[in-house]
Amino acid sequence: MRQTLDFLLFDWLRISDLTTRERFAEHSAETFAAVLDTCERIARDKFAPFNRLADTQEPHIVSDAGGERVHLPQATHDATRAYAESGMLAAAQDYDVGGMQLPCVIEMAGNAFFSKASVAMGGYAMLTSGNASLLMAHGTPLQREVFAKNEFAGRWFGTMCLSEPQAGSSLSDITTRAELEDEGDVLGARYRLTGNKMWISGGEHEITENIIHLVLAKIPGPDGKQIPGIKGISLFIVPKWLVNERAELTGERNDVALAGLNHKLGYRGTTNCLLNFGEGRWTPQGRKGAIGYLVGKPGEGLRAMFHMMNEARIGVGLGAVMLGYAGYEASLEYAKQRPQGRPMTAAGKDAASPQRPIIEHADVRRMLLAQKSYVEGGLALELYCARLVDELNTSDNAAEAQAVLDVLIPIAKSWPSEWCLEANSLAIQVLGGAGYTRDFPVEQYWRDNRLNMIHEGTHGIQGLDLLGRKVVQQGGASLVATAARVQATIERAMQTDWAPQANQLAGALAQVGGATKKAWSTGQPEEALANATPYLQAFGHTVLAWLWLDVALAVEGDSDFAQGKRAAARYFFAYELPKIAAWLDVVARRESLCRDIKSEYF
Amino acid sequence: MRQTLDFLLFDWLRISDLTTRERFAEHSAETFAAVLDTCERIARDKFAPFNRLADTQEPHIVSDAGGERVHLPQATHDATRAYAESGMLAAAQDYDVGGMQLPCVIEMAGNAFFSKASVAMGGYAMLTSGNASLLMAHGTPLQREVFAKNEFAGRWFGTMCLSEPQAGSSLSDITTRAELEDEGDVLGARYRLTGNKMWISGGEHEITENIIHLVLAKIPGPDGKQIPGIKGISLFIVPKWLVNERAELTGERNDVALAGLNHKLGYRGTTNCLLNFGEGRWTPQGRKGAIGYLVGKPGEGLRAMFHMMNEARIGVGLGAVMLGYAGYEASLEYAKQRPQGRPMTAAGKDAASPQRPIIEHADVRRMLLAQKSYVEGGLALELYCARLVDELNTSDNAAEAQAVLDVLIPIAKSWPSEWCLEANSLAIQVLGGAGYTRDFPVEQYWRDNRLNMIHEGTHGIQGLDLLGRKVVQQGGASLVATAARVQATIERAMQTDWAPQANQLAGALAQVGGATKKAWSTGQPEEALANATPYLQAFGHTVLAWLWLDVALAVEGDSDFAQGKRAAARYFFAYELPKIAAWLDVVARRESLCRDIKSEYF
Repeated sequence: MRQTLDFLLFDWLRISDLTTRERFAEHSAETFAAVLDTCERIARDKFAPFNRLADTQEPHIVSDAGGERVHLPQATHDATRAYAESGMLAAAQDYDVGGMQLPCVIEMAGNAFFSKASVAMGGYAMLTSGNASLLMAHGTPLQREVFAKNEFAGRWFGTMCLSEPQAGSSLSDITTRAELEDEGDVLGARYRLTGNKMWISGGEHEITENIIHLVLAKIPGPDGKQIPGIKGISLFIVPKWLVNERAELTGERNDVALAGLNHKLGYRGTTNCLLNFGEGRWTPQGRKGAIGYLVGKPGEGLRAMFHMMNEARIGVGLGAVMLGYAGYEASLEYAKQRPQGRPMTAAGKDAASPQRPIIEHADVRRMLLAQKSYVEGGLALELYCARLVDELNTSDNAAEAQAVLDVLIPIAKSWPSEWCLEANSLAIQVLGGAGYTRDFPVEQYWRDNRLNMIHEGTHGIQGLDLLGRKVVQQGGASLVATAARVQATIERAMQTDWAPQANQLAGALAQVGGATKKAWSTGQPEEALANATPYLQAFGHTVLAWLWLDVALAVEGDSDFAQGKRAAARYFFAYELPKIAAWLDVVARRESLCRDIKSEYF
Repeated sequence: MRQTLDFLLFDWLRISDLTTRERFAEHSAETFAAVLDTCERIARDKFAPFNRLADTQEPHIVSDAGGERVHLPQATHDATRAYAESGMLAAAQDYDVGGMQLPCVIEMAGNAFFSKASVAMGGYAMLTSGNASLLMAHGTPLQREVFAKNEFAGRWFGTMCLSEPQAGSSLSDITTRAELEDEGDVLGARYRLTGNKMWISGGEHEITENIIHLVLAKIPGPDGKQIPGIKGISLFIVPKWLVNERAELTGERNDVALAGLNHKLGYRGTTNCLLNFGEGRWTPQGRKGAIGYLVGKPGEGLRAMFHMMNEARIGVGLGAVMLGYAGYEASLEYAKQRPQGRPMTAAGKDAASPQRPIIEHADVRRMLLAQKSYVEGGLALELYCARLVDELNTSDNAAEAQAVLDVLIPIAKSWPSEWCLEANSLAIQVLGGAGYTRDFPVEQYWRDNRLNMIHEGTHGIQGLDLLGRKVVQQGGASLVATAARVQATIERAMQTDWAPQANQLAGALAQVGGATKKAWSTGQPEEALANATPYLQAFGHTVLAWLWLDVALAVEGDSDFAQGKRAAARYFFAYELPKIAAWLDVVARRESLCRDIKSEYF
């Protein structure tokens, strides 16, 4: 993987160019490589060896005199500690807050090693980094100093508390209530929160001495009622243990109670909790209610929370990719070692000859090549998006980068969640019966990866975001900007051996464009969006074909490495891109079957 | 499900017609229904409530004075006992051996309830029934009397011991050795077996007082060496405990040792073992070596073992279907109950209105309709194949039925293994985060179902069987016979509202036929078969479209039930059948990418 990563970063995305920008001026290709080396080493030593253990020793609740605690294996403590000590929590932050001022694309690339080694153990740090970054953008100077800086330092970890039992995809329906207690608290306007938060990853543990929850809640209007919809949602810092303005623990426990752990199919190494805020289990400062400090303005909580959405969705997509990558490598190694059967030849098979490694069977190669095209293509996609984040932050070309990134984000989140899950299934298939046992890692990768189509916006939500918002926003300008980049690759490829694929991609792009127009030709959202998921799938495959073509153009020489990249690119055009016709067909004709069927017909 | 099952059996397949045949003359629609009632009741009472328990209380080895035993939950004992007492083990057998002389299609339909309730707990009985049926076909009268009859009665359970650690898909490479001890044993020529057998489901347990292993092994040639290839393979009865010709246990333990349990991703309720034969752990009749009695002639073991292959592969396919069905029903129920969000309308959304059940969202309906089309279509496929087995056994039309069945068997095995697994994934997706927890059953269905693409001939093997043997056998006669049945449905549909779908199916059939010819146009197996799996997928989707069209033609009236069937059929034609173009494309042009890529390129 490292060779592919280096190729994509340095040869394809030319990230060394970033060092000419002021923000990254102190960096060089060498410092970037050193970061990757460090991440690779820590992931190999502290994460990968314990990935199965984190799965089998699932978090569980221990009750003792101190109340209810969540027990995690020592390995999780050690691994997250090593991560924190590496400085990666603040990788992209300014030097003056203790950060490394790294580009987003390097931060993501570094984190890729941890997702591959143990996506579940890596979860705590990713959440903390996202949480603290959000506070850097929206918090007061003191909130940054007290909360964000201690999270970046790894002293405290953080969570994101959005969902509630009755409000998952529909965040406008949250009911957690925040009542003003003291507008003048130095840590921010102080509220008392009451409500239940569901699916809180990292919601309870003892890895760090404190946990900083970022919580969405509604401040009631003058009539005491909550405002319907997302407009009423505000954002609060709710520490598990109260702290003062010098970031010292006061010793007082906030009114945040662990109400239960979710026992999951996979991703078991990350605790996932139901938390009750303000149920009166504790009475901080003498009364019930979880103390929370407002972040930003009232009513702007969702906007603040989604400030980090691009990075969060790239992170989820990258996690899916790296699970796929881990399975690909495991199945490749197995296929090279495992003798079974003999390849088909015109002369038939000589049963007396020794069995051959299964990698010699065409169908096994197909399964390996499919995986390779999914996981390396997925990696290219995520790095490309991370690079766009850097464009957004540090280039003159921010508007164009923003437009393209807007369109690509739902793909970056959804495509690997679907196809690198499929890669994991193929990895199991390559191993056969062995792959179905827990003696090999591939079944865990498959279980872990199944989460990624669900969290951070479901597959269905991504489809609605793409077709309902992104491709139509500003009169379709974002789609046009994206298509222009695809077109540029096509034009370059037309001058090369890749002209057939370039033509095929041009056709696909036209099909996607045509389907987009036809979907919206009646102007009725319910007609256009009834097939948003097939649209998402077709769009995703088209994006991946584009990136594979672009990657193929960056490949030089005739090394095995180079030939492998070309083979994967060819595979994608031969076996994958043709799938889009079936998906776009229903989009273009606004197939109403699913919309029309009555519930009673099922 | 029951209503759909009854409709498919009685209205679509008209199974009551079978009662006019001599073998089934004592049956009627009422006796058929009574069998289904009994199975439904036992499955509901004894299997379904314990399906999760059989997963969490995985089989484990207990060592005590009596040696090593495999511990199973009491529920598994109770459930398998209830199954045995129902008489279903001998459902299809003659009255004079204690059977019910039921058609295969009813036996399969009855067993469907158990697969749906707990596929893993149901595994023991399915294996036993297959084992004993094989002995009825190939055993001596005394072997039938002693072994088969006691298996049908549920006194003893049976296994199939084919795979070895070094020989899974490549059975010709088994090395278990059988040396003649006494040609004149009343129970059959007596051999001593030595070797290791892997992936043996039901290989060790204490549900029954004895376990009858059917074991493939090689008898050495005159030079003492084993004959390479499948020609050297013979079949043996190897009981765990020795028995005499009166079917009494002699009290002597055979030399069959449990060497380990496989710990699986799913299907955990069925023990899966590594067994060592003849390692000397026991010394029956004074010396080491597992005693085995030859079944049939030397060298014909594989043929005998595969005698029951049609039924076995229908059984696996049906198991995959029923897991899909269970997930479909669970997600349908959830979707009707779970409020979340509000459907998209031209007027936008009113956040102040109550949330609506998620079944009202078009994308959720899409996921439910996809599942419905997969699982009900899959059920139709398996019942159709079982009905063909009955044609084979009891009609004047056996040759044509055999030809069609030959072609459909790889589809019956593979299609539900892939698409009802996808149905299970969609069921998880409908439930969202809840579906990812072990509080709901859908994640277990998904894990259980992942086995079905692996055992009883992998997906890749099925593709080779279809494109490499079935469609080309007898000059393509079997393919022609199958196409004729498809054509007959198309012609009937042309006169109805289904003419557009009939035309679409005619086009698909032509594409499949064309791709078949082009694949073989160079006559080189390695060229034709390099894309056997995409061919299998395309063929499968075409078969399913055909069956859905045929089912749709049998639907009458405007009930919700009837409209649901029509919607699922329309869904399959609108969303699924168009997928075949991409799969057939690589087949028709004999795409050599996977065949050509070098191992070093990965």
